[in-house]
Amino acid sequence: MPKVVFSVDQSKPMRDQQVPGHNRWHPDIPVAAMVRPGEVFRVECREWTDSQIHNSDSANDVRDVDLSLAHMLSGPIGVEGAEPGDLLVVDILDLGPVPQETGEAPGQGWGYTGIFAKANGGGFLTDYFPDAYKAIWDFNGIYATSRHLPGIRYAGITHPGLFGTAPSAELLADWNRREQALIDTDPDRVPALGLPPLAENTLAGQATGEVATRIAREGARTVPARENGGNHDIKNFTRGARVFYPVHVKDAKLSGGDLHFSQGDGEITFCGAIEMGGFIDFHVDLIKGGMEKYGVSTNPVFMPGNVEPRYSEFISFIGISVDHDTNTNYYLDATVAYRRACLNAVEYLKRWGYTGEQAYLLLGSAPIEGRISGVVDIPNACCSLYLPTEIFDFDVRPNKEGPVKQKRGQCAVSS
Amino acid sequence: MPKVVFSVDQSKPMRDQQVPGHNRWHPDIPVAAMVRPGEVFRVECREWTDSQIHNSDSANDVRDVDLSLAHMLSGPIGVEGAEPGDLLVVDILDLGPVPQETGEAPGQGWGYTGIFAKANGGGFLTDYFPDAYKAIWDFNGIYATSRHLPGIRYAGITHPGLFGTAPSAELLADWNRREQALIDTDPDRVPALGLPPLAENTLAGQATGEVATRIAREGARTVPARENGGNHDIKNFTRGARVFYPVHVKDAKLSGGDLHFSQGDGEITFCGAIEMGGFIDFHVDLIKGGMEKYGVSTNPVFMPGNVEPRYSEFISFIGISVDHDTNTNYYLDATVAYRRACLNAVEYLKRWGYTGEQAYLLLGSAPIEGRISGVVDIPNACCSLYLPTEIFDFDVRPNKEGPVKQKRGQCAVSS
Amino acid sequence: MPKVVFSVDQSKPMRDQQVPGHNRWHPDIPVAAMVRPGEVFRVECREWTDSQIHNSDSANDVRDVDLSLAHMLSGPIGVEGAEPGDLLVVDILDLGPVPQETGEAPGQGWGYTGIFAKANGGGFLTDYFPDAYKAIWDFNGIYATSRHLPGIRYAGITHPGLFGTAPSAELLADWNRREQALIDTDPDRVPALGLPPLAENTLAGQATGEVATRIAREGARTVPARENGGNHDIKNFTRGARVFYPVHVKDAKLSGGDLHFSQGDGEITFCGAIEMGGFIDFHVDLIKGGMEKYGVSTNPVFMPGNVEPRYSEFISFIGISVDHDTNTNYYLDATVAYRRACLNAVEYLKRWGYTGEQAYLLLGSAPIEGRISGVVDIPNACCSLYLPTEIFDFDVRPNKEGPVKQKRGQCAVSS
Amino acid sequence: MPKVVFSVDQSKPMRDQQVPGHNRWHPDIPVAAMVRPGEVFRVECREWTDSQIHNSDSANDVRDVDLSLAHMLSGPIGVEGAEPGDLLVVDILDLGPVPQETGEAPGQGWGYTGIFAKANGGGFLTDYFPDAYKAIWDFNGIYATSRHLPGIRYAGITHPGLFGTAPSAELLADWNRREQALIDTDPDRVPALGLPPLAENTLAGQATGEVATRIAREGARTVPARENGGNHDIKNFTRGARVFYPVHVKDAKLSGGDLHFSQGDGEITFCGAIEMGGFIDFHVDLIKGGMEKYGVSTNPVFMPGNVEPRYSEFISFIGISVDHDTNTNYYLDATVAYRRACLNAVEYLKRWGYTGEQAYLLLGSAPIEGRISGVVDIPNACCSLYLPTEIFDFDVRPNKEGPVKQKRGQCAVSS
Repeated sequence: MPKVVFSVDQSKPMRDQQVPGHNRWHPDIPVAAMVRPGEVFRVECREWTDSQIHNSDSANDVRDVDLSLAHMLSGPIGVEGAEPGDLLVVDILDLGPVPQETGEAPGQGWGYTGIFAKANGGGFLTDYFPDAYKAIWDFNGIYATSRHLPGIRYAGITHPGLFGTAPSAELLADWNRREQALIDTDPDRVPALGLPPLAENTLAGQATGEVATRIAREGARTVPARENGGNHDIKNFTRGARVFYPVHVKDAKLSGGDLHFSQGDGEITFCGAIEMGGFIDFHVDLIKGGMEKYGVSTNPVFMPGNVEPRYSEFISFIGISVDHDTNTNYYLDATVAYRRACLNAVEYLKRWGYTGEQAYLLLGSAPIEGRISGVVDIPNACCSLYLPTEIFDFDVRPNKEGPVKQKRGQCAVSS
Repeated sequence: MPKVVFSVDQSKPMRDQQVPGHNRWHPDIPVAAMVRPGEVFRVECREWTDSQIHNSDSANDVRDVDLSLAHMLSGPIGVEGAEPGDLLVVDILDLGPVPQETGEAPGQGWGYTGIFAKANGGGFLTDYFPDAYKAIWDFNGIYATSRHLPGIRYAGITHPGLFGTAPSAELLADWNRREQALIDTDPDRVPALGLPPLAENTLAGQATGEVATRIAREGARTVPARENGGNHDIKNFTRGARVFYPVHVKDAKLSGGDLHFSQGDGEITFCGAIEMGGFIDFHVDLIKGGMEKYGVSTNPVFMPGNVEPRYSEFISFIGISVDHDTNTNYYLDATVAYRRACLNAVEYLKRWGYTGEQAYLLLGSAPIEGRISGVVDIPNACCSLYLPTEIFDFDVRPNKEGPVKQKRGQCAVSS
Repeated sequence: MPKVVFSVDQSKPMRDQQVPGHNRWHPDIPVAAMVRPGEVFRVECREWTDSQIHNSDSANDVRDVDLSLAHMLSGPIGVEGAEPGDLLVVDILDLGPVPQETGEAPGQGWGYTGIFAKANGGGFLTDYFPDAYKAIWDFNGIYATSRHLPGIRYAGITHPGLFGTAPSAELLADWNRREQALIDTDPDRVPALGLPPLAENTLAGQATGEVATRIAREGARTVPARENGGNHDIKNFTRGARVFYPVHVKDAKLSGGDLHFSQGDGEITFCGAIEMGGFIDFHVDLIKGGMEKYGVSTNPVFMPGNVEPRYSEFISFIGISVDHDTNTNYYLDATVAYRRACLNAVEYLKRWGYTGEQAYLLLGSAPIEGRISGVVDIPNACCSLYLPTEIFDFDVRPNKEGPVKQKRGQCAVSS
Repeated sequence: MPKVVFSVDQSKPMRDQQVPGHNRWHPDIPVAAMVRPGEVFRVECREWTDSQIHNSDSANDVRDVDLSLAHMLSGPIGVEGAEPGDLLVVDILDLGPVPQETGEAPGQGWGYTGIFAKANGGGFLTDYFPDAYKAIWDFNGIYATSRHLPGIRYAGITHPGLFGTAPSAELLADWNRREQALIDTDPDRVPALGLPPLAENTLAGQATGEVATRIAREGARTVPARENGGNHDIKNFTRGARVFYPVHVKDAKLSGGDLHFSQGDGEITFCGAIEMGGFIDFHVDLIKGGMEKYGVSTNPVFMPGNVEPRYSEFISFIGISVDHDTNTNYYLDATVAYRRACLNAVEYLKRWGYTGEQAYLLLGSAPIEGRISGVVDIPNACCSLYLPTEIFDFDVRPNKEGPVKQKRGQCAVSS
């Protein structure tokens, strides 16, 4: 087991850890631990939020999640010798839920997938599913199953939803400026168009006094992916992956968390992966001046891992950038197209006896692939969604007889 | 060799074939041939357009393409017993370029990838590459190589860009209404937001007289994918795939063409696949009442083929829905995010000596995967682009030394 | 379509072709055509034998096959500049059955798998299945199905069973010496231990007179694989594969044939692949002095193609080097172990309603993988056989209820 | 973490565990723990032997291994309700090295691959490599690297070398009878043809008195695979695999161990996998009367896991059943053929700077595939060995220039 450079007691909130992490991006959050290029080390992580989610059959906990707490990041880990302009080479050597059972927190034998209420951020299909729902997943080695989603079982493609380097002060200012400009176009929208800095509930690691105050005032929220990496939610950042992060500040300051046992492309339910606390083992290295050498000036580059399960048979759904409910056409809008592909898949799964909410939770967490198939055939973008047939314990392919519809229970709902 | 139910003489335009095809969608285009459920048959196809493209080093032909001619569809093939509400089950048994060399048309040992000029429709990166370009590809069995793109070779994932059933009169009216509404929001835009019906250059199959006139007046253009299938440009409609098309009119009336030797997800250069004429062998069957049985009320459903090449190593690029040139944030816009991933890949490839245009052509035609990774992390959608490393004859992965930049020629340009 | 350097009229035996091929290995068989390194060319091939096999429901034709005719090789193709010690780099660019229907010979829309009678060479399980059987396969694009084996369908991994370079006179003498020594240990065995040179039915290409006589007297039979390549029956010599053949004579003299639409590892029924006539497209090149450079002093080296279908789910059978019928132990004998794995698979398939002969024919021709799992755990070698579940149209996995046994017809039998 | 039903203190030999395991197969070894069908549980395992192997640069420890100690099996685990004739359905949910560092035993961050001396059992190439050698491997998450084998890195396909159910008294008697008959054909052979029961160093679990004495006298050695499962050394018994074991005694009595971090098909160095202690998590179930239902009368059946790394590019070696050193032909002997393929691979790797011993250790432990390609082409069996190119940090494919031979160190040798 490699050296633990950031440890977490899963029975306590991140705020109360011996060395607390942070939940905003800011260059001045003090380094929690230093490592050297070439070193292998372990980082322990809380689940993404300190809002307590329970292994229960009620989704009230998901309904009441306080988004201002997210995400609970372990770090920053400083890398000796890293300077702005370098590429930080991060190998994900291992990743998993909490190895020991020490309490009831997610990651200790179970995890959850949640659908947020529309008033609280919603999800990708929030106009169709505006309330809060939840599915609890049991982990048995590589497999996840759910009492809320009978009939499916699959091996997890474990990955971190969120890792990144610290932004420079200039980059941070750019983020805040452009996101505020977006919010200002429709400030009263529900769900909001963006999340501006918010002092309340800010966790600034080991910063104190005036520095902590400035971090709370300026720190970028952690929800989106940005130039430093961030909340990519790319399911293929799995074990064996190598990520090349741009370095924007001295020592790089790598932070992250939001571990997922599994997730579908798009993470469509927002809290859509199977969320858990756990550990992640890294090897780090540097390519000096790598940003310029390789033209990696904005987003990270990566090489995905190849130990993820590979499937050979899929039932696939197509969506185009048309809102069929209103017969409205959007111009090459891949977001609309993927949403329609998701809705088409939901409709299909309902014919087999799942509720719409169950289908939605399934698509958020199962190893589905979301593809941008065509984005130039005006005016319709075309996206497709690949659902592996092998995760079902019944034959889910279309046939002449039609689907055998049967009761398949229900997910956890909110009151 | 199965029975040819629609034959094409590749030396002649579609208009001059013995039984001509069509280039608009309309329920009244007469059936060109009938088949029975359970039957295996061959359809021969022209390349997508009758605008003549040459195996040359000038892109003037691409610059001058007349979009009103597209797409040249073989069909309609009527399926006995098909009625509205059924699902037409189409197996793609085989597909390839023209087997015999009978002239100089694409598909006869070669194909091409084109970038349209912005004034003529443009492509996905048209704001960055507003002019016309072209790459010629040589086919050697399963492999494609290009004198315009030295250093790469890959096996083609051959597929039809476009197949579909005929729309009903009501569905056609819906299309025309919603697309005109979109166009009306910015009628002078270049490139246009959509392509309304256009009598000029309409090809209505064997229709004559008043019927032909009505088809020319009402017929939907073939560029986008719609509820009947259409121009999906899904590269995984490859050999072995099974597609379930909704049936909207009696006999289903299956038509298509636009065969591709290879294409990357997104087909980002618009004329972005490796275009060719060729043949496609089908098996068809029916699921009576399948649309209702399986909830397939809008888009087709499919099962992808599994004889495509599988790669185990990729260099992957990320994009988010931010225009970094202007530091402008877009709200969960997967189209913007994928565009940035493409631009990041172009930048990377330029460091190895390719021109931007070459990189653009490469990404349009090579077997890249385009993934919707995250679409819920407000405000930034996150997309990723997987480029298989094995298609390069040099080691394209980042390393400490930096890329060996060398001259890699140039693609065909327009004067 | 590349230049045809060796053409075959499928309606005629090899002997009667304009330029006949050969059916023995000998350095003095005259070159039929010359190619240059870097060249792409097509070779047309007869099925493996000129014994006529029919698309029928009787296996009498298989029972009466004359093994002295085999194999019908197209070639030799001379490669300019090739000298002993070089490696001949052969890319398989394409391969398929005869494109046009010109008669009833295998490859023209159909092929066959045969089990030889024990008296006529037998197969891998000849002690259990001593008589002759046959299955006819229909080709529909990439798929094969058989009226003699209902319930299965799969994409073919097309490949040549046999290609190789000419032996030198010394190498040929070595072969004849060592094989005769083996035969001499049990000269009356049925089936025979080996096949010595046989003048009868020798086909020596364009050789005449004294040269032809010497070839008939000395020429090695084509059944086994040897140092020059030969009858490898490696199913992964499929499209996209690159083979490095040792060069033993001036011009290399590449010859081959015995095309297979599909085959399982081991080709256990002897005539066990799906046999067909067809074409193969090559690109050739040379590594001068490559045998010494890479230590390739005996057998060829190859890189398999990656366009073959990949499966993700298998039902797998194990065998060990014990004859359970007699409770006899063999020492680390992988041949015995694989035979037992095959017998175990046959037994399993019989529970689903196939006859033993059908199961045997299925395992010979379907894309099964045969693995040497352990060869050091004294005294038992352990081999395993991977049968992809997706080739069945029913669920072939074990479950609590037990298999649904139903009638599944019968293969062609001999009278 | 599931309930541990068999625990191991890695700092102590198996003999000194609180509940000791066993190292012989016998029906009377008392059950160590009972589980119910449907239950998930963990079994902890020692490395395969109590002969102490060190993380050192000397192979004297491997040279002196006492084979009479092997294998150290955890169990027997009784399964409630299991009766002779059932199939025991075993899911491998997880498997890994020892999670905590508690000492210097293999599995605690490292493992080893050994080549036995010919006098002590030897390996698959013992006539070519008669002495003892060793490589030490470091585990970093999913990856293994070795200071004794620079230039390679790969993800482990972790699996148990050995698991099985207890034999009935009759089956055990059969084993002893047939193996003694084999040994008797050449009783003085070195290495021995088989390993008969041996009272010395027998470990009989919790058996005492007369029962323990009988077990020592009759108990079958654990080296080979047999009808009960046993030492299969099938690398694809990896996480996610499902194995169907025949049940021969009441409660099934599942036992096993010999965990491997990685292994090549064949496990050619005998102690050829990367050996380690660790844990394995199971789910068990029963198919009542399954042996008869499915015709599984001899060996287990299994479905391999699909989370193993998949490679898309290989350099592959061929062997035929000819001893080229003496020009001797063997009749369809797959063991000889695979040995030649291994020797050909060794020769190739030597051209890149590895010693023969290093190459041998590499092929034993890396994820190579060993295929039975042809076993009917008299007189030569043909086997092939697939070596994934991606495990090398240099380009190992043949090219025109020839290999860049460089010093690549040495493995641990014996004095």
